[in-house]
Amino acid sequence: MNTADLELPVSVPSTALFTDQYELTMLQAALRGGTAGRRSVFEVFTRRLPEGRRYGVVAGTGRVLDAVENFRFDPEILEFLRTQRVVDETTLDWLADFRFRGDIHGYPEGEVYFPGSPIMRVTGTFAECVVLETVILSILNHDSAVAAAASRMAVAAGGRPLVEMGARRTHELAAVAASRAAYVGGFAKTSDLAAGFRYGIPTSGTSAHAFTLLHDTERDAFQAQVDSLGSDTTLLVDTYDIAEAVRTAVQVAGPELGAVRIDSGDLLLIAHRVRQQLDELGARQTRIVVTSDLDEYAIASLAAAPVDSYGVGTRLVTGSGHPTCSMVYKLVARADSDAPDAPLRPVAKKGLGGKSTIGGAKWAARGRDAEGIAETEVVGGGEVPEHLLDAQLQVPLVRQGAAVAREPLDAARDRHRAALAGLPLSAAQLSRGEPVLPTEHR
Amino acid sequence: MNTADLELPVSVPSTALFTDQYELTMLQAALRGGTAGRRSVFEVFTRRLPEGRRYGVVAGTGRVLDAVENFRFDPEILEFLRTQRVVDETTLDWLADFRFRGDIHGYPEGEVYFPGSPIMRVTGTFAECVVLETVILSILNHDSAVAAAASRMAVAAGGRPLVEMGARRTHELAAVAASRAAYVGGFAKTSDLAAGFRYGIPTSGTSAHAFTLLHDTERDAFQAQVDSLGSDTTLLVDTYDIAEAVRTAVQVAGPELGAVRIDSGDLLLIAHRVRQQLDELGARQTRIVVTSDLDEYAIASLAAAPVDSYGVGTRLVTGSGHPTCSMVYKLVARADSDAPDAPLRPVAKKGLGGKSTIGGAKWAARGRDAEGIAETEVVGGGEVPEHLLDAQLQVPLVRQGAAVAREPLDAARDRHRAALAGLPLSAAQLSRGEPVLPTEHR
Repeated sequence: MNTADLELPVSVPSTALFTDQYELTMLQAALRGGTAGRRSVFEVFTRRLPEGRRYGVVAGTGRVLDAVENFRFDPEILEFLRTQRVVDETTLDWLADFRFRGDIHGYPEGEVYFPGSPIMRVTGTFAECVVLETVILSILNHDSAVAAAASRMAVAAGGRPLVEMGARRTHELAAVAASRAAYVGGFAKTSDLAAGFRYGIPTSGTSAHAFTLLHDTERDAFQAQVDSLGSDTTLLVDTYDIAEAVRTAVQVAGPELGAVRIDSGDLLLIAHRVRQQLDELGARQTRIVVTSDLDEYAIASLAAAPVDSYGVGTRLVTGSGHPTCSMVYKLVARADSDAPDAPLRPVAKKGLGGKSTIGGAKWAARGRDAEGIAETEVVGGGEVPEHLLDAQLQVPLVRQGAAVAREPLDAARDRHRAALAGLPLSAAQLSRGEPVLPTEHR
Repeated sequence: MNTADLELPVSVPSTALFTDQYELTMLQAALRGGTAGRRSVFEVFTRRLPEGRRYGVVAGTGRVLDAVENFRFDPEILEFLRTQRVVDETTLDWLADFRFRGDIHGYPEGEVYFPGSPIMRVTGTFAECVVLETVILSILNHDSAVAAAASRMAVAAGGRPLVEMGARRTHELAAVAASRAAYVGGFAKTSDLAAGFRYGIPTSGTSAHAFTLLHDTERDAFQAQVDSLGSDTTLLVDTYDIAEAVRTAVQVAGPELGAVRIDSGDLLLIAHRVRQQLDELGARQTRIVVTSDLDEYAIASLAAAPVDSYGVGTRLVTGSGHPTCSMVYKLVARADSDAPDAPLRPVAKKGLGGKSTIGGAKWAARGRDAEGIAETEVVGGGEVPEHLLDAQLQVPLVRQGAAVAREPLDAARDRHRAALAGLPLSAAQLSRGEPVLPTEHR
């Protein structure tokens, strides 16, 4: 069995229970009814972007590869399913031998997406595809929500570096995945040591208000920090009076003080004052870090302020108002029998209230103008038109159950930067609007 | 080393890296400066409830106990910290032997809280308390956000059972904690098998649209499901035409059909029509389950509809608009030296923009009127007034590093129900308003 590589600092043997019960009861009924072996195609897509958002960001793909490879039912899990009578013995026998042997294609991690984009396509027997629904959606819905927020914040920050600091505001393991997604979306560092351990994301952090309060005076605290961490450290200057703290900080660390951090108040005003004070004290190289409840709008509003970097917590890990994407995993085609050569037939549910689906496996390509700027997300069934062959978005991710698209996290991060650069300029607008590319169904 | 009991279906050796880097750099500086051994008190509290909410729900306490006991730095983690030069050798030596040996008091799980309630109080040396900040906040902020949403949904549902179905909309492990929190908040079941495995929460689930689409006709699908799962199963009736599906369902399963599920459309209207149709078909005992993007308001709007149970996903696991609480972990008192008998001195930061804190360790009690209905959350320092001695809210959770308050999850669930019953009736209002109890600082 492979190492699971969930984002834990340890190996985890199985992802098989990150599954809604109905997937296993459907499996049981299909095994009994003789339909479990029908070749099937499931697609992951969204019907809409979060309100006002102009693009989505695919993130979590690398984690999906790990989760699919480690989707195995060990004896302890099987015993749980038996004891709880979740499924019958025939199904338990089938699960005991299970590993996914199908194919997965999809948008590579860091790519942007739009309503209807076929972000992932899972092909195999009904049985082996249906059980992956929840774990695939959990990963993509969470990670893509954070990456989309991160991307907007990175755009708002211009070239200034962003540090992810949201671990305390979300589940302790979601936090690790959030750090990873934020990095894909353009963040530079994280405060979360587990994310550094697991994914090699650069970590940072120096001190909190508690450290100042531990000492009898602010000067004692600064001195202790500088003695231990050196003068290139970041001193937190808003525990008591900021102007006095900045003066003390430069006295203690000297003009080579690395940075000061401001975590409260009117950041625009304070940053200007602190910059002026630092310059007057000769600490011209000392940077200013701000960290108070920032989101993409607050970051944008500080564009003209003398701020060197931003620390972002709550709003990042909660997707800046949209903590999940609305990705769904739908059966779009299946064979009429379990003969290996039985042709695939498009299927779709009618549904109500906008919940209908479009049948058939789909390709996707990005149409571009003469300057190479994207202008359409083209989604279609059947053959890909010749002029779009080179503009296709989906790549092979898993072949016959084996991941074929593992890559360093920096590759996804670079890909996102490139994808963003290829969108119309209005993608960078923070104001609410329509998706920056229309989706054209062929 | 204890089993970690994160909500994983496996043991996890350590929670030590669910930590922001600054906690370890503060530790290093305090060790070097000779202040690390100062006896300290940290408190967890919120400055406000999410806008318009009338009460908060404490959840995750049981998970905090596990996380604290398993906060240990194993050789692999220490090597990471060494290689990345996060902290110096002295600090690594200290961490190698670390286990928390202090005390934790707090509101028991399931209890309600208000702005300023001292939800948790951690007492020990500065060193041993400061490193727990992130993991404690991650757990409480996430789990309490979900429990608060769950509690409002349970109130809105009256006595009708609620099923948690949100795994696909949140991180795969956050989902397991969310199921747990939802159960504390009043949900009856979960679709998430990992939550059933880890916490013994009852699981449920039968089939999705994919199962219907797998078959050549809806009748074939229903027949296959009933053949395998029995006539007491729940058939999903909105893949094509609902009225036709209901007719087919009763034909296939007979009037003893367990339930039908409706996942789209105008649920109020459809539920009435389906109920009437089921009754006319003689399926008077067949229940109606609805599951389409529900939140507490949608649930309340269905109070008069013939609905038997609700399945809730996205809005539950994302805290119904408030995916995190704003709990913070603040140093409120510390000694002037590391002598074991050095007295504790209250400390507080000034901060700006409402970020100031109140110094000193605090007790909390709930004042009640003659009928026993709560009327005030009383928070104070020093001695507890005699008339409030029996109304205190905090209990011992950890003594000298050992958890003393482990309990079955049902105890927390029962406690929440009782706490809610002791609040003024306006706590049950879904409309936005002030906290139902004022917090009185003594």
